[in-house]
Amino acid sequence: MSFETVSQSRCCGGTQFVYRHDSRETGTPMRLAVFVPPQAETGKVPVVWFLSGLTCTEENFTVKAGAQRVAAELGLILIAPDTSPRGEGVPDDPEGAYDFGLGAGFYLDATEAPWARNYRMRSYLERELPGLVAEALPADMTRQGITGHSMGGHGALTLALRDPGRFKAISAFAPIASPMNCPWGEKALTHYIGPDRSAWREYDACALIEGGARLPDLLVDQGTADGFLDSQLKPRLLEEACARAGQPLTLRMQDGYDHSYFFIATFIEDHLRWHAERLGP
Amino acid sequence: MSFETVSQSRCCGGTQFVYRHDSRETGTPMRLAVFVPPQAETGKVPVVWFLSGLTCTEENFTVKAGAQRVAAELGLILIAPDTSPRGEGVPDDPEGAYDFGLGAGFYLDATEAPWARNYRMRSYLERELPGLVAEALPADMTRQGITGHSMGGHGALTLALRDPGRFKAISAFAPIASPMNCPWGEKALTHYIGPDRSAWREYDACALIEGGARLPDLLVDQGTADGFLDSQLKPRLLEEACARAGQPLTLRMQDGYDHSYFFIATFIEDHLRWHAERLGP
Repeated sequence: MSFETVSQSRCCGGTQFVYRHDSRETGTPMRLAVFVPPQAETGKVPVVWFLSGLTCTEENFTVKAGAQRVAAELGLILIAPDTSPRGEGVPDDPEGAYDFGLGAGFYLDATEAPWARNYRMRSYLERELPGLVAEALPADMTRQGITGHSMGGHGALTLALRDPGRFKAISAFAPIASPMNCPWGEKALTHYIGPDRSAWREYDACALIEGGARLPDLLVDQGTADGFLDSQLKPRLLEEACARAGQPLTLRMQDGYDHSYFFIATFIEDHLRWHAERLGP
Repeated sequence: MSFETVSQSRCCGGTQFVYRHDSRETGTPMRLAVFVPPQAETGKVPVVWFLSGLTCTEENFTVKAGAQRVAAELGLILIAPDTSPRGEGVPDDPEGAYDFGLGAGFYLDATEAPWARNYRMRSYLERELPGLVAEALPADMTRQGITGHSMGGHGALTLALRDPGRFKAISAFAPIASPMNCPWGEKALTHYIGPDRSAWREYDACALIEGGARLPDLLVDQGTADGFLDSQLKPRLLEEACARAGQPLTLRMQDGYDHSYFFIATFIEDHLRWHAERLGP
């Protein structure tokens, strides 16, 4: 199989794997964490992708969210990819900032030098990795859901909006609702894609919805005590875009919750049940 | 209050705190993680202590075990102390080994130089910290349970065995069953307590049980794929000591589980329910 096993641990009756493989798209080795539930011993099961936020690797969601217990009950494979290419020769933010470069791939295909060679997380997640997963894992690729946190919430929404057939269930935790309209997104898009803002629209959930893209429905949780709420995340922009377009959205403002994994751990069960209902038994 | 708040996050309807305070016993600042469940808003609630293993701080259990969800349901305060004193002037293993010194206090009061000044985790957990907790938190100190992992399982068992009135519920995950009879324990006890093995007995669960100490009952989970099972943990020594002494023990060998927090995350719910049953509503 195309994945090399870095580690595996029994967890909640299933198995938590960390895999490594050489990526054609990023030109680097990539890691991903995969939880395989007990139901996969007897047949293919649905898949839920979790895209992580700035600074994260495949590990954060896997060790902090407590998602395996629910995935084991519902019979879901969970896949947590890394958030950027890494390794020798992969360019990083010149000042080593946390919000660009390593750990901050923004789920796009960079077009600008020196980023364009390695920063191809969009194609990696749209084409390469699903192909490898379908080949290597007991995954029913006709039943995929996607969710993510912060930058990964942006990734989940934009991947799903650009490819409406692929995901039957879509949700997000504190997503960057409109990268075109916040400092994190403006910095990333300027450097990865260049100054032409019209080229940014395919990486902006609000712009995609405005342009006619649709999802079956959408669940978003956002903590009211999240320090990035007003400056970076801006869920009201998503709410307004959905309202204007008639896009169904369940936006839950969660009182007192912040941007940490304690927030994700609190609501991951709701999200996985939302996904399981839409992915079918 | 005696605790300074380092961080706090809403989690599962309660609040996850990290506190800092100056310890009289260790002569250093100490941190602890405390989860306060929603039930504490209207009255005092029982407390479950979790003692962590080698290399850990107050953080590992707090972010990796997924315990808050169950504690919020059952109405339990969870307290995860650090595993050793830390900071400038605190002596560490001369070779920086992971199994002695910083992160490896072994829940004892050292008597040997240079360890005796700071390495006083026993008195810290037997006297100082419970006093501070009783003063600062909505904790019903007549209803305490204790559990822990690996070195912390050893800590939980020996603290409870030496003070039979204090804890109404005791359990452990992959505890070091007999520090006198494994390399981790022999190294720690030799350096912290000195070469006289008779002085080691108060830090050995099997020796304490052999000497007449008793617990109401005891739940122990141990993974069969734990890489430290035969060399360090040796649950059969505990099983034999309990059998000889008539000490009730539920030892569950969990097929295929290793020594990681994926093992703890899998069985923490069982343990917290065991504690809640014994601590009362």
